[in-house]
Amino acid sequence: MALTLYHHPHSRSAGIRVMLEELGVDYEAKLVDLQAGEQRRPEFLALNPLGKLPTLVDGDTVVTEQVAVYLHLADRFPEAGLAPAIGDPERGSYLRWLVYYASCFEPAVVDRSLKRGPAEPSVSPYRDFDSMLGAIEAQIERGPWVLGERFSAADVLWGTALNWTTQFGLVPETPVIKDYIQRTQARPAFQRAKELDAALLAAA
Amino acid sequence: MALTLYHHPHSRSAGIRVMLEELGVDYEAKLVDLQAGEQRRPEFLALNPLGKLPTLVDGDTVVTEQVAVYLHLADRFPEAGLAPAIGDPERGSYLRWLVYYASCFEPAVVDRSLKRGPAEPSVSPYRDFDSMLGAIEAQIERGPWVLGERFSAADVLWGTALNWTTQFGLVPETPVIKDYIQRTQARPAFQRAKELDAALLAAA
Repeated sequence: MALTLYHHPHSRSAGIRVMLEELGVDYEAKLVDLQAGEQRRPEFLALNPLGKLPTLVDGDTVVTEQVAVYLHLADRFPEAGLAPAIGDPERGSYLRWLVYYASCFEPAVVDRSLKRGPAEPSVSPYRDFDSMLGAIEAQIERGPWVLGERFSAADVLWGTALNWTTQFGLVPETPVIKDYIQRTQARPAFQRAKELDAALLAAA
Repeated sequence: MALTLYHHPHSRSAGIRVMLEELGVDYEAKLVDLQAGEQRRPEFLALNPLGKLPTLVDGDTVVTEQVAVYLHLADRFPEAGLAPAIGDPERGSYLRWLVYYASCFEPAVVDRSLKRGPAEPSVSPYRDFDSMLGAIEAQIERGPWVLGERFSAADVLWGTALNWTTQFGLVPETPVIKDYIQRTQARPAFQRAKELDAALLAAA
């Protein structure tokens, strides 16, 4: 198989499994046992020196960083229609809201999980938690998807991210967010990924 | 003009001005006076609710988040050759090292600037500062550019980022990093951007 996802269901790779199911492509999911410290084995660190998931091997190419993996997969399989093509007027907005996850949402959630405030406004990448959340919430409120009528890889990311962060109490489950999570989780690919992940953990 | 960059030379938009000069396209740079608080004006917050730079308006599209703006511009003007095309084997690596800036480098630099340590390994997006820096340093050491022989938008980003973070003492100026900064800063577009930024500030 050309695509190998180094994966653990309870890690940043969770949504990438959903993405691969949305694409309907062949791939192998290799479980990296985080509790056993397999992410610190030399052969894995050779792929990703930070020992992080997801790590995707696509032929000779190694792609790390969650948002990069979404961008890569969506463009590599354009027939699935999960990314506006280059030149499409929605492309800029698509890039904006995918990168927003990495540059704003994740730093804000990490700070909140550690009960730390943001840096001062000129330094903080996300201003403050409520501003950060308000911007993405306004975007999905226009909905039904991040790009409006068009479902995209951005929704696989945000559906996954808002689901686990609300479950952990890091993000408030407002009606807008709750509805959006339900819309994404109802998709067959989200359900298939959940079943495959349960089987993967059961077999380990 | 179709492209408007909301800009301040001493902000996250600095490298985007260089990028536009590398592309050689027409654009308008609108100074947002951060000291005067212009980033909190309602008309600017309507474009970017976090009040951050860079904010790029491209026709009807608003693109925010530094890495998204690089991705957008490089693909929008493919004739400049600043991004491997979709399907090019280097595309995945290109995406990886651009997103790495947002997801790993910036959180690490913010923590360092605040004299905070990273979160525990399972939470931290960048493991620890030395691992984070070591990975990008190894990539540019193979050089001369992030993608090897091929100069790309990733070098506009990293050349800019390593320049200011070493100047502020947040990143150590190792020989590898120093050489890389000199290679990038020697490019005509970096020089033109510096002159244009000086003129912009002088006129304000």
